[in-house]
Amino acid sequence: MKALILVIDGLADRPLRALNGRTPLEAARRENLDSLAKEAITGILDPISPGVRAGSDTSHLAIMGYDPYEVYTGRGPYEALGMGLELEPGDIAFRCNFATVDKSLVVKDRRAGRIGDTRELQRAIKEEVKLPIAFDFASLKYRASLVLKGEGLSHEVSDIDPHVAGKKVKKPMALSKAAEKTAQILWDFTQQSNKVLTKHPRNRDRELPANILLPRGGGKYLPIESFQKRYGLRASCIGTTAIIKGIARSAGFEIIEPQDDYGSRIDQALREEDKDLVLINIKEVDEAGHDNQPEEKLKIIEQIDLAVEELRGFVRENYLVILSDHSTPCTVGDHAGDTVPVLIAGPEVRADGVESFDERSCSKGGLNRLRARHIMPILLDLMNLSGKFGA
Amino acid sequence: MKALILVIDGLADRPLRALNGRTPLEAARRENLDSLAKEAITGILDPISPGVRAGSDTSHLAIMGYDPYEVYTGRGPYEALGMGLELEPGDIAFRCNFATVDKSLVVKDRRAGRIGDTRELQRAIKEEVKLPIAFDFASLKYRASLVLKGEGLSHEVSDIDPHVAGKKVKKPMALSKAAEKTAQILWDFTQQSNKVLTKHPRNRDRELPANILLPRGGGKYLPIESFQKRYGLRASCIGTTAIIKGIARSAGFEIIEPQDDYGSRIDQALREEDKDLVLINIKEVDEAGHDNQPEEKLKIIEQIDLAVEELRGFVRENYLVILSDHSTPCTVGDHAGDTVPVLIAGPEVRADGVESFDERSCSKGGLNRLRARHIMPILLDLMNLSGKFGA
Repeated sequence: MKALILVIDGLADRPLRALNGRTPLEAARRENLDSLAKEAITGILDPISPGVRAGSDTSHLAIMGYDPYEVYTGRGPYEALGMGLELEPGDIAFRCNFATVDKSLVVKDRRAGRIGDTRELQRAIKEEVKLPIAFDFASLKYRASLVLKGEGLSHEVSDIDPHVAGKKVKKPMALSKAAEKTAQILWDFTQQSNKVLTKHPRNRDRELPANILLPRGGGKYLPIESFQKRYGLRASCIGTTAIIKGIARSAGFEIIEPQDDYGSRIDQALREEDKDLVLINIKEVDEAGHDNQPEEKLKIIEQIDLAVEELRGFVRENYLVILSDHSTPCTVGDHAGDTVPVLIAGPEVRADGVESFDERSCSKGGLNRLRARHIMPILLDLMNLSGKFGA
Repeated sequence: MKALILVIDGLADRPLRALNGRTPLEAARRENLDSLAKEAITGILDPISPGVRAGSDTSHLAIMGYDPYEVYTGRGPYEALGMGLELEPGDIAFRCNFATVDKSLVVKDRRAGRIGDTRELQRAIKEEVKLPIAFDFASLKYRASLVLKGEGLSHEVSDIDPHVAGKKVKKPMALSKAAEKTAQILWDFTQQSNKVLTKHPRNRDRELPANILLPRGGGKYLPIESFQKRYGLRASCIGTTAIIKGIARSAGFEIIEPQDDYGSRIDQALREEDKDLVLINIKEVDEAGHDNQPEEKLKIIEQIDLAVEELRGFVRENYLVILSDHSTPCTVGDHAGDTVPVLIAGPEVRADGVESFDERSCSKGGLNRLRARHIMPILLDLMNLSGKFGA
């Protein structure tokens, strides 16, 4: 018996005027999702707890059964793992962007014109930046990851990235006494990156040169118990973003590079025959929410609905969880603290009479209202893999 | 954007024979509450946790987002704050009643015939009672508040008030070793109050002289993080009782003296233009429950229903929470541990199809079952004021 967890990132939304008071999910044609709901037990989840706005990282940790309040210190380590860097316990990692600044360090573009190939720049940073401690660095397009290694470091430093264009790069502040050395090294790194990148030939003809690296989201790498050890399940993850790959990698999931269309990704999951559980993260819906594009969000949901058709056979012998990791209401343009719908389909669930997979229908479901961290214990139990507490 | 929290104190009830198996809320005409419910997301709340009987004080702390298990030691400090006394951290405060006792200290009337003006008596107590430590004292009609100040004091002493007429005043017991000094001082205070008051001219012609003060509900004042610091919201409170005023004052709310009728109190709330949040507590429903007066409870609910009509416009641009802080079933004549109905109305809520605001209809609502302490995080999220946990 296998399990598949399909996370539709940022799927949940609020009633939108643009959709006559319906959410994008409610307004979408979703024949297959509804068919699955009819056979499923449904409910609503608080990703973390009521009203709390979850990141995709903290929420995925919860969906995988970990307590983000225990293990999460910042996005940095997950970005680093997702970019393929190796981390050791205590390493401090930052997400960075290649960005464009003027001579007084005012940010002109936070993504350096979405620069494509940064391999040469990556090599230059690794070779020419000299720090008093060891560091590692990786990049993919404008996104990059910096890992600081050594004694006496801390993740409690403020972001150098000012988060909006037009503002000056911020000298990092130590948020605790123990972080003073790290703040100094991080500022040193940023200034050196500016020197190395400014003179790099790759930038010669660029209107928006990638002339600085802006670290943010510092976190300390705390290894967690592997998913396989915790649950006895061999697992893999199909996701597009570094942060999701990194979260899964931190729990020992095998990482599968996703194909482009949603149907192919589901095929990829079904082909993972040596695995007990596959987690698929579909990021594209979330992006439409961030961009306040209800129609686009609806369209992507309809594409996903077509792709899940072939899961209707899967649930005869296996368990399927479909959920959203958090809401990304179009009107908010960012994650919000609403509940998200969930369905669990499979041979032995108590189907609850809910006929639609959407935010409001699922609030009437047989799971009632749970937290994301309850999903793994329920799934494990349905798969008949739980131990008994008591006699 | 503003928020209004309307607490209808003790609103929730149980099916009553006197109302053909309906609760007072179910039996009441409540056109406006139902209209608001139709546009709202609804649910039921455990004020503290399932089955736990909440006081109005602990429940209001929870509604305001504080954990009463962390901050609450007794009603005394809130009564003192509500009566306008100034408290310092560590002060020990008691609620007192002016009462009538006979010569052997048997209580004849716990409220001294509901004596009206006690200002002269208050002055006499402050001037003539001599304790080995500093103390402060205030009164309003038969209700009073005593604050003990100094080192080595504790709130862990038993009540002097025997809580029923016909019983003898109780010498206080130290409930912990550290409270022995306080128990002694408190007994000293009570005996001196008896002497001072017995000879006071204000009592000369009273059939039920206010000839003793009976302390109860001792608590230690532990300052809490202000509401404004915690949530970034400037808040005020419109309540009639000292304890509610005191709870709100302890969290830094501005206290507004309420007008008589319910509509005027709502007008007062809507005029608080420099505030982000107003909490209104309507106490009268609770009193009818304590007195086992179902018809009276129903009548007051209908008056409140008329008063909330003007909130139907408010919710187009702002958020409104209507809830009860605990149930006060007429048959119990005191607070009980039932769930209470809640609605949240405002521009972006997922209205859930529930058409009535009552105990049983709201149990089908889209919020499902929450705790009172979840209300503030949800409200903050809807007002778009929450931070994100993660990336």
